[in-house]
Amino acid sequence: MTDHIVKSFDNELTRLDGEIQRMGQIAVAQLDAAIDVLQRRDSQAAMRVVANDEAIDALEHEISHDVLRLLALRQPMARDLREVYAALRISSDIERIGDYAANVAKRSMVLNQSAPVTVARGLPALARLANNLVTEALAAYRLRDADKAMQVRGRDAELDAEYTGLFRELLTYMAEDPRQITACTHLLFIAKNIERIGDHATNIAENTWFLVHGELPAGDRAKADLTSS
Amino acid sequence: MTDHIVKSFDNELTRLDGEIQRMGQIAVAQLDAAIDVLQRRDSQAAMRVVANDEAIDALEHEISHDVLRLLALRQPMARDLREVYAALRISSDIERIGDYAANVAKRSMVLNQSAPVTVARGLPALARLANNLVTEALAAYRLRDADKAMQVRGRDAELDAEYTGLFRELLTYMAEDPRQITACTHLLFIAKNIERIGDHATNIAENTWFLVHGELPAGDRAKADLTSS
Repeated sequence: MTDHIVKSFDNELTRLDGEIQRMGQIAVAQLDAAIDVLQRRDSQAAMRVVANDEAIDALEHEISHDVLRLLALRQPMARDLREVYAALRISSDIERIGDYAANVAKRSMVLNQSAPVTVARGLPALARLANNLVTEALAAYRLRDADKAMQVRGRDAELDAEYTGLFRELLTYMAEDPRQITACTHLLFIAKNIERIGDHATNIAENTWFLVHGELPAGDRAKADLTSS
Repeated sequence: MTDHIVKSFDNELTRLDGEIQRMGQIAVAQLDAAIDVLQRRDSQAAMRVVANDEAIDALEHEISHDVLRLLALRQPMARDLREVYAALRISSDIERIGDYAANVAKRSMVLNQSAPVTVARGLPALARLANNLVTEALAAYRLRDADKAMQVRGRDAELDAEYTGLFRELLTYMAEDPRQITACTHLLFIAKNIERIGDHATNIAENTWFLVHGELPAGDRAKADLTSS
């Protein structure tokens, strides 16, 4: 392979990296914004969060397109092939994270149709933890740091524990005040969305490990969603 | 390229196809089994459904592995490359369908800890419809029939409408009998899992279209989950 082609492949990988990091930043900002509009009960702003999800979807399409072009034109092998494969997988996880954030904003609009529910207080902390996991997973990916990625994977259990606590709290609240059942159900689904975001952070971490080592990490990942077991 | 290499690539694609169809059959059988054990309140059998999910995960790993080997050794282009790309995407959707089916079985065990809830009757119909969409999407993929795939995509709206009906019914039931709140919450999540399976059938259909036409289908997909809008 000539130097020119090698350089060009590296440039394209750098470009892919940039797209993925940008996608990730938007997804994290979207979840922050969704929780903010939920707390402020601002349906107008919530609609903007929902609309913004298109930017993430567009970036995912761009990345898929770039990946297919790279595979066809550069025919990468070994580590280079894993780079391209990981980019595809990770962009798909970020797209899902964006979907969950948009769904939080969407449900906040439904919540605004009834009285405020105080128990929603636990959600911002849950969302901060989820966003922290996503941010750390993306940093591990950016640095190609497999050990850092494994730390993120281990921390998903913290999020699951917080989610489980919130889940039980919401059930208690519903039983105490059945008028809040509809609102609390949407809060339950919002909490579940945030818990799922943590699973996708774990996926990003596992794909980072795979990219570096060429095999999947050993050992089971922390079990998701203790409320169903 | 020599005839020998071409034949061998075709053989490998056929093998991938077989793996994906097998994976899909297991996922559909898993959802059937999960609904069956839920109705029969059989926690022993539910545990077996949860354990069976490993077979699907193992097939997904095998497919990822095969795809990476195919990309490295055969360096496919154009339609051949899209074949490999679609296999990767579709296997990932089936893996998610399997996860949702296993989660239904897991939650059925939690439900067995309290009295039966009659409103669970709506779930088998919802699951049948979801399984029908998955089966049709996999048939469209097997036949490389993009038009059939688009019909499946259009039918996801039926599932969303049935899910929305069940969602409202469950909320009413919870309000009428607050002792059922915990059980009904798990039924809500079970219904949501089944609704999500329909979204993955839609993804399979869209990837089939992409495989045949080299571009994504035009027009928005039917909006998922009307309960949050």
